[in-house]
Amino acid sequence: MSKKVQFDRDVLYQVFDESILVNLGFVIDDQPFVIPTLGWRVGNTLYIHGGVSSRMLKHLEGGANCCITATLVDGMVLGRSAFNHSTNYRSAMVFGTMKKVSDPAEKTEVLRLFMEHIAPGRSEVARAPSHSELMATSVLSIDIEDATVKMRQGPPKTKECDRDREMWAGELVMRQVVGPMVADDLVPAGMEAPDYSAAWGSRWEK
Amino acid sequence: MSKKVQFDRDVLYQVFDESILVNLGFVIDDQPFVIPTLGWRVGNTLYIHGGVSSRMLKHLEGGANCCITATLVDGMVLGRSAFNHSTNYRSAMVFGTMKKVSDPAEKTEVLRLFMEHIAPGRSEVARAPSHSELMATSVLSIDIEDATVKMRQGPPKTKECDRDREMWAGELVMRQVVGPMVADDLVPAGMEAPDYSAAWGSRWEK
Repeated sequence: MSKKVQFDRDVLYQVFDESILVNLGFVIDDQPFVIPTLGWRVGNTLYIHGGVSSRMLKHLEGGANCCITATLVDGMVLGRSAFNHSTNYRSAMVFGTMKKVSDPAEKTEVLRLFMEHIAPGRSEVARAPSHSELMATSVLSIDIEDATVKMRQGPPKTKECDRDREMWAGELVMRQVVGPMVADDLVPAGMEAPDYSAAWGSRWEK
Repeated sequence: MSKKVQFDRDVLYQVFDESILVNLGFVIDDQPFVIPTLGWRVGNTLYIHGGVSSRMLKHLEGGANCCITATLVDGMVLGRSAFNHSTNYRSAMVFGTMKKVSDPAEKTEVLRLFMEHIAPGRSEVARAPSHSELMATSVLSIDIEDATVKMRQGPPKTKECDRDREMWAGELVMRQVVGPMVADDLVPAGMEAPDYSAAWGSRWEK
């Protein structure tokens, strides 16, 4: 994969920002693994985190080649022939090797930004990580340089021979909805849930 | 990865059936790739498809090790400390090598079942694949034997020292919603969209 591959950085950022779920691919003893985890972007850098004992994170911080993929499925494309069915989607892939974020201040800050990405304002009320909690957490980063974006949008293709079929064709829209907020048992009756809708845009449950 | 790993087959089936999107991991020249594609299950076998010229499919049908992962994100778990945030999810992974479905009758049938999985009844109205369309399509299969399931459900954990923090904690529910149906320009005015809600259960837009 050449470092000179062109890709649409705006779409790539959007895919990672909206997906939050990333699929991390790496290889151990010729066996590929694809592990789902959360990923977040700060500027042109993508971050993941996990427990320091994680076999995956140890492997990756050792310099293993990886591929990080995020995908938003926008809809099923329902054509007039079986062959002309398709999927509307936006997908982003980043290749390279990850490095460990060792500086405690940087680690604290990118973890704070991660929480703010999901729940704006929450880092001001939730207890910040203790020293031992911070030490128990690994954060890895990768700069978004060697990357690709793939997408399909729009109606189905219809072959000339299928134009007159009397049938419905188009798109079955798919989207992610966020909400409601479900309180746990320790939340006092009557306490209002915070509003994190600003973080989730049009995906917030109406 | 041992063939004797225990996993919850019901959850695994549910994850693949509901996700439809799978992330396919494989290795070319020490570089892992994670490619999103659609996957569907028939009995205990998982299928993917694509164009015969697909580099990925050619590589896989040559016997390359792969990992196929599907994940449903059920919600963000918002704890009382940064450290006790988490994610509710269900994830399934299948390992092994894929084989090409060569028999045209089997290929036709599993492609038909794929369409029925997404849009029940549609295979009766959409034009079936021509011989050349079928020849232009590759279908690969893998039996679900070497597999794992991972999941987290439930409220956040709360450490003793955080129990009295006066703040909201719980789950921010996330789910996929399916619909509406958006007709393309060739659909005559007034033609009703078919009802595929049976395929999508509680995810169908209410």
